Amino acid sequence: MPWDSKDLDRRFHPDVVAVVGSRRADDYIWLRNMTDFKGKLYSVQVDPGDIEGIDKMGIPNYKSLAEIPGPVDYVVMAVPRRVAPAILRDAIAKGVKAVHMFTSGFAEAGSADGAQAQQQITNMAREAGLLVIGPNCMGLYNPARGMRTGPGQGVDSVGSLAIISQSGAHNNALIQAAQASGIGINKGVSFGNAIVLDSPDLLKYFGEDPNTSFICAYIEGPKDGRRFFEELREACRRKPVILYKGGQTEAGQRAASSHTGSLAGSPEVWGAVARQTGAIRVDSFEEAVDMMKALAYLAPTTGDAVGIIGGSGGQSVSMGDDFSRAGLRVPRLSQPTLDAMSSFFQLVGASFYNPVDVGQMNRRNMESIIDLLAMDPNINALGLMVGGGFGRRPREEVHAQFEMYQKAGIKAGKPVMAMIWSPIPYRDADMLLEADNFLQQLKIPVFASPARAARALRKMVDYYALRRDMEALRD
Amino acid sequence: MPWDSKDLDRRFHPDVVAVVGSRRADDYIWLRNMTDFKGKLYSVQVDPGDIEGIDKMGIPNYKSLAEIPGPVDYVVMAVPRRVAPAILRDAIAKGVKAVHMFTSGFAEAGSADGAQAQQQITNMAREAGLLVIGPNCMGLYNPARGMRTGPGQGVDSVGSLAIISQSGAHNNALIQAAQASGIGINKGVSFGNAIVLDSPDLLKYFGEDPNTSFICAYIEGPKDGRRFFEELREACRRKPVILYKGGQTEAGQRAASSHTGSLAGSPEVWGAVARQTGAIRVDSFEEAVDMMKALAYLAPTTGDAVGIIGGSGGQSVSMGDDFSRAGLRVPRLSQPTLDAMSSFFQLVGASFYNPVDVGQMNRRNMESIIDLLAMDPNINALGLMVGGGFGRRPREEVHAQFEMYQKAGIKAGKPVMAMIWSPIPYRDADMLLEADNFLQQLKIPVFASPARAARALRKMVDYYALRRDMEALRD
Repeated sequence: MPWDSKDLDRRFHPDVVAVVGSRRADDYIWLRNMTDFKGKLYSVQVDPGDIEGIDKMGIPNYKSLAEIPGPVDYVVMAVPRRVAPAILRDAIAKGVKAVHMFTSGFAEAGSADGAQAQQQITNMAREAGLLVIGPNCMGLYNPARGMRTGPGQGVDSVGSLAIISQSGAHNNALIQAAQASGIGINKGVSFGNAIVLDSPDLLKYFGEDPNTSFICAYIEGPKDGRRFFEELREACRRKPVILYKGGQTEAGQRAASSHTGSLAGSPEVWGAVARQTGAIRVDSFEEAVDMMKALAYLAPTTGDAVGIIGGSGGQSVSMGDDFSRAGLRVPRLSQPTLDAMSSFFQLVGASFYNPVDVGQMNRRNMESIIDLLAMDPNINALGLMVGGGFGRRPREEVHAQFEMYQKAGIKAGKPVMAMIWSPIPYRDADMLLEADNFLQQLKIPVFASPARAARALRKMVDYYALRRDMEALRD
Repeated sequence: MPWDSKDLDRRFHPDVVAVVGSRRADDYIWLRNMTDFKGKLYSVQVDPGDIEGIDKMGIPNYKSLAEIPGPVDYVVMAVPRRVAPAILRDAIAKGVKAVHMFTSGFAEAGSADGAQAQQQITNMAREAGLLVIGPNCMGLYNPARGMRTGPGQGVDSVGSLAIISQSGAHNNALIQAAQASGIGINKGVSFGNAIVLDSPDLLKYFGEDPNTSFICAYIEGPKDGRRFFEELREACRRKPVILYKGGQTEAGQRAASSHTGSLAGSPEVWGAVARQTGAIRVDSFEEAVDMMKALAYLAPTTGDAVGIIGGSGGQSVSMGDDFSRAGLRVPRLSQPTLDAMSSFFQLVGASFYNPVDVGQMNRRNMESIIDLLAMDPNINALGLMVGGGFGRRPREEVHAQFEMYQKAGIKAGKPVMAMIWSPIPYRDADMLLEADNFLQQLKIPVFASPARAARALRKMVDYYALRRDMEALRD
């Protein structure tokens, strides 16, 4: 039963929400996730020990969905599995449009009664035409309506990234990473066992959504492989789709089976799916985050030649290796650039080849160096190494340098990215946070290492080259 | 001219050090590196503008090495290149035993006069039998004598790791990362252009050194490939040697050439070198750091089956994939273990397969779960996922759990490692630092991601399997 995108959109934007089964034991997490909901919020709870805290939060509590005055659009169900069918029945009777089932213990439990219970709620929802998100999931993050799937999520701004995740933990971690990177999010949907709402519905919805400019999808296993393939291809025709497939190995598949009851295909199959649909395939959480940053911030390019500044000798060697290994080029600069550099560059403890090791003495010429590198015809993209040492330099000097980068990139029409080099990032946190925050303001993404920056850029270059080729075919 | 290890050892342990050319412009960095030197420290500087600050530091300054009363064992040379030969001549006349040349601008500059100047100082040093470290390097970190190569290095304790690095930045970053990970260091030597002291000398020295239990070497290119190979093989017979080869790609080689004037071999050649010598090959700075932690902390094993606890559903899937991709197994637990688990394990929102997703309800049985996993005959090593969520749990509970891990690992005689899952580690710094510090006290290493933990464990298993096989051959 494919969902019409306009219909889904209405169900994703409720005016009245009821949270059923919020408990003191988890500090009322599901009610707290909705404290900024931009509509009417109710609670349903029968246990007096739990109701006390709900009253203190000032949220009206009822003993059942039926008792809530007026219609309810959206229900968050956080009750034990045995109670779930009764709550679902109540929701259907109340005319609820969407139910997010946090409740778990269904097919993913691997037991006969779990599978049976899942079949029961599936039949109920389908007969009633009810949108069920889940079960066994974190549901819908929709900042426009103030709906969270976990603590700490910002709901003050809305962006154009859509996150689709079969895993609740990945959903929340992707939201957290995107927000920490300054990337605005349209919605994030954790859909778990996908008994009614599955990834093809979401790919169709976000693919057609004019407010979504790119999609990041974590998938364990769609129920309908054919439809998944077709909706993925269709979405990829309209916008970039990052595809992170979990459960590609035997051990990963076993975990996926007990996580969302999914049967997963081989890496070969998923490699073919990505190639044939034009999806951007990533194989880890880190790669997914890096790819979101690349798409959000980097100016499109189809060129594979990178000019790198920053870092000292050994770091230049390692960065040359990292970028080459990722399939990019770190080419010699053009002769006019080398001639211009040699007119002022001090070579002691430094090098103006590529990577450019600026050294201490050339810092006063940073603007010329950055401009020459950015305008060099041999160079398609710029990389800035932010080493631990910058923390010991005057802030104004460092910030001025970051701004030179931004301007040079804009002037040359080339992507600019930064990468950090810190042995143990959480031990250099103050410094790295400051650099990251400042670079974010300049729309320069920061990658955790040169190797990660290189892999993200390589995938981005491949993506834009494919898109260019496909558009040429269509003309 | 190979160096005798006993002779080197004496030259590495000076009683009197003179720093020549320390300047106000770099805040007297080379004198500051020696402020905890456990012997007599002198300065040589002729510029009155620089001498003023040296006087304020209370360090006796002279106009030349000759004027210093009594013998000088070790000189740090931080003068411009044109002055270097004269200082070297003075050092030889004074009977100095070792000179660390920070001075750069020699062969690495790629100019004819740079190469000529390098030949000149090489000839001078060889004729005089003088140990020159460098030029173009950070020299010797020797905590036993209070000698630093950079700010912030601890010199209060001495350990058994030896670091050898052709890059000064890598040398200092490896020292920083090892110390932050609680790994004690014997010495760290940055040797730059290696005109007199080269990597084979250092491999021989640290290979024979009874106070060194393992070695981490960053190499751009040895002058004498044959000798390098032989000394590396010899050192590997005695102790683990991590080999990080910089400049394996065309871009990396170009950078290596302008960094230390090294000519580097192909990745294939270096792969063969590692295989034939038994060195543990790593291809990035991060891998080098992870490998140091694995060797310092993990109980040796030759088994490739990992039991993982922690993390929720999606993380379990990803960890299963990560460990499988690294060539390890995350096997089904044995039937007796599964039977025992099923007697108490609550399956809702959890799974006792492998990875074990404990869920909220099973936390009260953590000790049993960890013990069962550790004692399972199908499991050779234990992995603990430390997710962001642990920061929201009571500290005592988390610490108690870490201790259960440590005890279970010791009881089972199996290595125990922890891995973190944080979208952007420097944004979760407080929490991760606390976990890392506490786990270090328990001798449990923390890796920055499951993928990195998996790669380090795989290399460690390979290393101990090779060593077992070689020992069997010798018997």
